[in-house]
Amino acid sequence: MNSLNLNPQIQSDDSTKIISPLDPEEFKRQGYMMIDFLADYYANVGNYPVLSHVEPGYLKQRLPSSAPLGPEPIESILEDVKEHIIPGITHWMSPNYYGYFPSSSSIAGFIGEILSTGFGIVGFNWISSPAATELESIVMDWLGQMLRLPKTFLFSGNENGGGVLLGTTCEGLLCTLVAARDKTLSKVGIENIGKLVVYGSDQTHSAFQKASQIAGIHPKNFRAIKTKRSSSFTLSADSLLSTILLDVENGLIPCYLCANVGATATAAIDPVGTLCNVAKDYGIWVHVDAAYAGAACICPEFRYCIDGVEHVNSFSFNAHKWFLSNLTCCCLWVKDHTALNKSLSTNPHFLRNKASESKQVIDYKDWQITLSRKFNALKLWLVLRSYGVDNLRNFLRHHVEMAKTFEGLVRLDKRFEIFVPCNFSLVCFRISPSAIVNRCSNGTKVEPNGKLRNGERPSVNEMNRKLLDLINSSGSAYMTHGEVEGAFVIRCAIGATLTEEHHVIKAWKLVQEHTNSLLGVF
Amino acid sequence: MNSLNLNPQIQSDDSTKIISPLDPEEFKRQGYMMIDFLADYYANVGNYPVLSHVEPGYLKQRLPSSAPLGPEPIESILEDVKEHIIPGITHWMSPNYYGYFPSSSSIAGFIGEILSTGFGIVGFNWISSPAATELESIVMDWLGQMLRLPKTFLFSGNENGGGVLLGTTCEGLLCTLVAARDKTLSKVGIENIGKLVVYGSDQTHSAFQKASQIAGIHPKNFRAIKTKRSSSFTLSADSLLSTILLDVENGLIPCYLCANVGATATAAIDPVGTLCNVAKDYGIWVHVDAAYAGAACICPEFRYCIDGVEHVNSFSFNAHKWFLSNLTCCCLWVKDHTALNKSLSTNPHFLRNKASESKQVIDYKDWQITLSRKFNALKLWLVLRSYGVDNLRNFLRHHVEMAKTFEGLVRLDKRFEIFVPCNFSLVCFRISPSAIVNRCSNGTKVEPNGKLRNGERPSVNEMNRKLLDLINSSGSAYMTHGEVEGAFVIRCAIGATLTEEHHVIKAWKLVQEHTNSLLGVF
Repeated sequence: MNSLNLNPQIQSDDSTKIISPLDPEEFKRQGYMMIDFLADYYANVGNYPVLSHVEPGYLKQRLPSSAPLGPEPIESILEDVKEHIIPGITHWMSPNYYGYFPSSSSIAGFIGEILSTGFGIVGFNWISSPAATELESIVMDWLGQMLRLPKTFLFSGNENGGGVLLGTTCEGLLCTLVAARDKTLSKVGIENIGKLVVYGSDQTHSAFQKASQIAGIHPKNFRAIKTKRSSSFTLSADSLLSTILLDVENGLIPCYLCANVGATATAAIDPVGTLCNVAKDYGIWVHVDAAYAGAACICPEFRYCIDGVEHVNSFSFNAHKWFLSNLTCCCLWVKDHTALNKSLSTNPHFLRNKASESKQVIDYKDWQITLSRKFNALKLWLVLRSYGVDNLRNFLRHHVEMAKTFEGLVRLDKRFEIFVPCNFSLVCFRISPSAIVNRCSNGTKVEPNGKLRNGERPSVNEMNRKLLDLINSSGSAYMTHGEVEGAFVIRCAIGATLTEEHHVIKAWKLVQEHTNSLLGVF
Repeated sequence: MNSLNLNPQIQSDDSTKIISPLDPEEFKRQGYMMIDFLADYYANVGNYPVLSHVEPGYLKQRLPSSAPLGPEPIESILEDVKEHIIPGITHWMSPNYYGYFPSSSSIAGFIGEILSTGFGIVGFNWISSPAATELESIVMDWLGQMLRLPKTFLFSGNENGGGVLLGTTCEGLLCTLVAARDKTLSKVGIENIGKLVVYGSDQTHSAFQKASQIAGIHPKNFRAIKTKRSSSFTLSADSLLSTILLDVENGLIPCYLCANVGATATAAIDPVGTLCNVAKDYGIWVHVDAAYAGAACICPEFRYCIDGVEHVNSFSFNAHKWFLSNLTCCCLWVKDHTALNKSLSTNPHFLRNKASESKQVIDYKDWQITLSRKFNALKLWLVLRSYGVDNLRNFLRHHVEMAKTFEGLVRLDKRFEIFVPCNFSLVCFRISPSAIVNRCSNGTKVEPNGKLRNGERPSVNEMNRKLLDLINSSGSAYMTHGEVEGAFVIRCAIGATLTEEHHVIKAWKLVQEHTNSLLGVF
């Protein structure tokens, strides 16, 4: 390729467009086109099959094996998006999406992300764009107040407190775990890194295990303490204490506890205050992971879920899960940011500046894993202002109400059981063992984990797995599963922005129809 | 607050808007508004002072101390953006921006980010949205081919090879370092984590130190090997070898080397091949950090800079730095992704699915720090297709040419020196010690680090610092500095998308004018 010559195509009439990658008129033309495309997508996303049904490798067969040498018009690319990408998307924006936890979107969140992308600033320290840092501190105090976090977590209430916007909970866990690790090692000596122990329950998100692996915690020192259905899968203070005592007896050093508020499988809510009572005697850093459910705590009636938060070291939730702030937006507050900074700061020559040296400003690079960061706060600022606190509360309540409706419908059908009482907007249900027994006219006994005692098939777990497959294959709704105490449980996580009550009722009818075909109507 | 009642405002005529956060018509209205706003911003960004001149705390005085209870119209928010946010932005998109390395933007990059944000999918594993994973694998192979990476780094060439899109180089370094750490520990025993040593030069980005801290490498085992101006600040194989030998002699265990291609201060290019020759004898994982300069390696005339890459374990560059892919977009390739996966994967119940179990698909969650990820590939796909390989090469060459123009202008003015020969599009220059000597009519001698031997002020470093302050205070251009071998050097990093030759010439005139006022014309 004689690449030193200009490509003939850029000498054509299209040349201005091609070599002016930020031409304002072309920016408008393509920008409008995408806005129209997305508006149309939102208007119709409810009609798409929620779960994609493509086969592995489908896209490779449809796209070229190398990048084009010359430019291609946006119109062709958009056609390809419609024809080849859309069929391979699982539609998280669909009103019929009930999987995992939702990916929460809104016009305000989208606009905030657009603005951040458009400004293209890199906000690693204050001087690199003061507005980015200052707006973030302000918005994190706003949101902290809405959650009624103690003042020790706010910039306005504590010299060392404050909040930061990260990407995901994984980052929040890793940053605080590294801070806790180094804080402990500074007392016991760095050579004891192999003795540090971290604690969570068996309901704690796998992100915690991942953070622990990355931070160099010995795999044998990762504790996932058993929880029980009878106590709604919450971590008990007694279990925590006995685990700690055993570790201490074995010469290990307790370091960090991740408590759940709204854990993934069943939205379990650990008793934050009583766990802190145990942790404090061992100098354990306590983090509250409220990734999904934290949002709800802006409603006074749910605030009790984080009672005791005044005793923890750090608290995080994902505004991209249930707070209308498009991916990604993890809100983390800490009481003592100097602990984070000690572990996460570096001070290279090229970033030194008078503002940072004056200690009058925050440099968010020292609160996170990466150096670079976008103008993160715009999105949250737009969401808080565009909707306002009262509407945000009502939006969340509307989802909780819909979950109650769904839970009520499940309870009315005796073939089903609600596996644990519904927390927030997550309903965990399954075809009950007794329904299978009824169907097995020979009266085969069913064990609590859903297996038939004499080995007869299908087991309750298999039956529920089949039901979930049928629901998802239909394309009319998408739910996912959890496995707790050996039971396969279907999760209906309500929270997609476009979901309304009629969608939820339709989803339930779908569940019933497929159950009819599985079990027969009786 | 009687929050259980609906806010009066959502019962008003505006109610549809407020409680329909994804209403297509309102989405269009606000979307167009933002596109217009940003088009206008790009048309005028050259007129703004590049560096913001607000004082610490400026924004807190202008914004309310808590979030609004009721909704506010987008028009008011946009007014606030103009009035309060824009003055606090350092305009990375300005054609007069020459700081750090640029933040590279384009219409295609912007559109890609919009689409990813709009779809709102979470692509942690294949099933969560097959198109997101498959497009990423395809695009990473396209780009790998453009860089002429050996086939061992491509999905199409090696079962265990392939590329992934992360956020930033910090993540690329941390992921590969953790993989290298665990690979070494699997041989020497996990209890030896305190003995692992990581290597880079004193020019290696601080991200490496940060990654090392996070991964639990003992701070004493972080090596920043000295480089010299006389060899353009490149890491020599001899220095590396002698450092390793000393460590081995002391019972330490070499683990990881980060080689630079285009280091931050002066764009130094380490000799990748010869460093690998040393590293291989000690089983050291070699990573090439080409964050800024990697983009240029798609041009055949720059490809030699990564000669030897066939011997490394991993290679990364940031497409958001100089490749028109808006923040954030770090491209990482590895020869053996199973090493990454071993360290970064967790396999919780709730993510188990048939596709993953078939081993026919990639789950990118196991290639990165976090679980959640956006539809990362759209942006790069849009950039590659909208501009095409030839135009991308010419775009990069245009910047290199402008840097040569600037370098030529510096060389013509005898008061200045080019500190190291210009690599790529970064020009490192300063007022030369001899110019200061000429001005000091008493003939005071100047040491190489810029200090005057008899202590007379100002030193060369101080003079250059003053010059940089004057340039940046003018608002007409923004450059940053590096400190190498004790010398304060001004960096002019050309690469902002809107920069054209006339901007560069104007910037040089600005430098001269302020030098005149500092030194007097002579």
